[in-house]
Amino acid sequence: MTRPLTATWGPTDRRGIEPVDGGVTAAAGFRAGATTAGLKASGRPDLAVVLADEPAQVAVAATTNRVRAACCDVAVDHAASGIARAVVINAGNANACTPDGRAHAEQTCRVAAELLETEPTQVVPMSTGVIGVPLPVDRLVDALPAVLADADDTPAGAGRAANAIMTTDLVEKQVAYVISDEQGSCTIGGMAKGSGMIEPAMATMLAVITTDAPVPASMLRTLLKRAVARTFNRISVDASGSTNDTVAVLASGSARTPVGLATFQAGLEAVCADLAAKIVRDGEGVTRVARIVVGNARIEDDAEQLARAVAASALFRAALHGGDPNWGRILAAMGASGVEFDPERVSVACGGVTVCRFGVAASFDRGQASHAMSRPEVDITIDLGVGDQSATFLVGDLSKDYVTINADYTT
Amino acid sequence: MTRPLTATWGPTDRRGIEPVDGGVTAAAGFRAGATTAGLKASGRPDLAVVLADEPAQVAVAATTNRVRAACCDVAVDHAASGIARAVVINAGNANACTPDGRAHAEQTCRVAAELLETEPTQVVPMSTGVIGVPLPVDRLVDALPAVLADADDTPAGAGRAANAIMTTDLVEKQVAYVISDEQGSCTIGGMAKGSGMIEPAMATMLAVITTDAPVPASMLRTLLKRAVARTFNRISVDASGSTNDTVAVLASGSARTPVGLATFQAGLEAVCADLAAKIVRDGEGVTRVARIVVGNARIEDDAEQLARAVAASALFRAALHGGDPNWGRILAAMGASGVEFDPERVSVACGGVTVCRFGVAASFDRGQASHAMSRPEVDITIDLGVGDQSATFLVGDLSKDYVTINADYTT
Repeated sequence: MTRPLTATWGPTDRRGIEPVDGGVTAAAGFRAGATTAGLKASGRPDLAVVLADEPAQVAVAATTNRVRAACCDVAVDHAASGIARAVVINAGNANACTPDGRAHAEQTCRVAAELLETEPTQVVPMSTGVIGVPLPVDRLVDALPAVLADADDTPAGAGRAANAIMTTDLVEKQVAYVISDEQGSCTIGGMAKGSGMIEPAMATMLAVITTDAPVPASMLRTLLKRAVARTFNRISVDASGSTNDTVAVLASGSARTPVGLATFQAGLEAVCADLAAKIVRDGEGVTRVARIVVGNARIEDDAEQLARAVAASALFRAALHGGDPNWGRILAAMGASGVEFDPERVSVACGGVTVCRFGVAASFDRGQASHAMSRPEVDITIDLGVGDQSATFLVGDLSKDYVTINADYTT
Repeated sequence: MTRPLTATWGPTDRRGIEPVDGGVTAAAGFRAGATTAGLKASGRPDLAVVLADEPAQVAVAATTNRVRAACCDVAVDHAASGIARAVVINAGNANACTPDGRAHAEQTCRVAAELLETEPTQVVPMSTGVIGVPLPVDRLVDALPAVLADADDTPAGAGRAANAIMTTDLVEKQVAYVISDEQGSCTIGGMAKGSGMIEPAMATMLAVITTDAPVPASMLRTLLKRAVARTFNRISVDASGSTNDTVAVLASGSARTPVGLATFQAGLEAVCADLAAKIVRDGEGVTRVARIVVGNARIEDDAEQLARAVAASALFRAALHGGDPNWGRILAAMGASGVEFDPERVSVACGGVTVCRFGVAASFDRGQASHAMSRPEVDITIDLGVGDQSATFLVGDLSKDYVTINADYTT
């Protein structure tokens, strides 16, 4: 007998993880702010910074897309030093696929470092926006003194930064937790942006996470990689991998009696999971989010690949939009994924209603199933019936608004 | 220097390939017809046959989806005999993911064989429609005498069959050619259906092709495989692989002075290419078709995979819908495909206008490029600049109508 499946997102045990205000400034030792450099056509704020009062430990994960923005290359190179004082983020231009992209990213870091009286390698650059248009680097550099002056350690400063990095995002995405265990406590907070071109293959469209926990950069890299693999790398808005996905974690170490490593890992995963979920909920045109759980698999990788295949199916996402428990499309997407599984062992439930049992239609009340599929958040549980491994994937529905938003973006 | 790219679809040399009327009845020795068995909710004709007057050589290609309809299994098994007298096709029900699917497909063949006074293995079944609902096999079997009686060797009979196999298709899809060379001539004709769940991984949603050429089944299999690989397997409406894709070719051998093998292969590829193109043009919600050519690749497989990745990108397809030459999305999709290539060697032209040269923006007239992207058929040429291999892929745009059509299909 295989065990019943439940959808979990982020750490299964959230005891000792309490939400607080403040986003990236919730943890002691960090400031944030924003200004308008003139990179967005809308004239809205488009340049943000996150500053560490003292040199912080840093880890960065960036997209594995072969067409990677110059800022990602520079961010990864600079984070290799293990130390960062600042993350400089512009919206309105991705600094991707342009001839001088690397020079522009390096110039940004050099000028910011001069103003902060530190080394360029201690500045992590991030960019988001249109691909292929040269970054107006002069405007960006001219605005650096203003953005640094704007930074403060309040929730308001964090909010200004979270707002400035938005592109097609409708809402700011921030989260912060105080996590505690028997050893002590610390704070982890973060912000993110992202709404379209979301199927991260390493991290997602721009996230910055700060903590006061004393975690060395080498350990931070390991923990970040693990958290990203289960959170940002398991979401999709449109199955479209980006050129710019980057997430950075900065650790100030100012927490006096920090938590144990396992607690910190759970807290970091909670922050990543919540930011990732916010990205999907705010996905372009998204009206409804599915948590796709593939469980009772032989290995976790099979579960993840099958969940990703269902999430990538335009037919499934259109059915999700229509509140339609169309399990045939789920099985068709799984079957085309290249993953081995036995269709005759597969059962599928939509919103708690079993619609397919052992590969064929279950008898179910269609009205009840449609009602369950029409909630703002729907659990799709797919039981492979062969093992005990599982993976959860978040995806938004495919709406007409997605088409409207993306039919005319550059021109 | 790499050579300039041109988009070709089907055989590059179409000399000696002349269109004629008649679809599957164009070739001598075949009849076709249709009736209403009561499988479609609309009450429209839903059962079709293609009959060979004498036992014909046959080859079948079916979906590689791990979740495969029972009719596909039976079609492949029966075609292994190399001989067929009939193809029986129902629309309105896919006979996929149901407990008695195989028994229902076999019963259909058995009854048809009795009526035709032949063996069940000489009947090839095909089904298309909703997944997971048991096939009302009694209604289908009861209608077999009527559909056999309806069959004739006229273009009208072929048209009735092509019409009955439609589901969300808006138009019938038929083509026929007389092909000739210095050795002689023969006729190849076919029909197809398919509009959604189209990214065939072996063949596409139901196609039947007939010819009077005397080609033995073993050779027919080889030729079909080759033609399918370059035609049906290189189209996409929604990057969603189906459970039911099947294509069958029947050869009566009645042509007295047939063409050479190479000419026959070109003719078969022309028929497959034209039917495949008709499927994309009639794709759900499709208003515009792109021919994506990836060329100057090291190997053809790289070119095909990259073209497929661009075709699968919802962002590219939404941009195509908007007539937006958004090459950044093309490069982002290629970069996420897993195929190795050098972005700095890539050039992209949309509708003949070069928009990206060596990985960065080319200088181009945006109005001219948008105009070129707004035609009913748009060539997207992607030059990898490293070899001389290429592949062409057809895909439709992503429109609001696709969402409307698919948001509420089963319920």
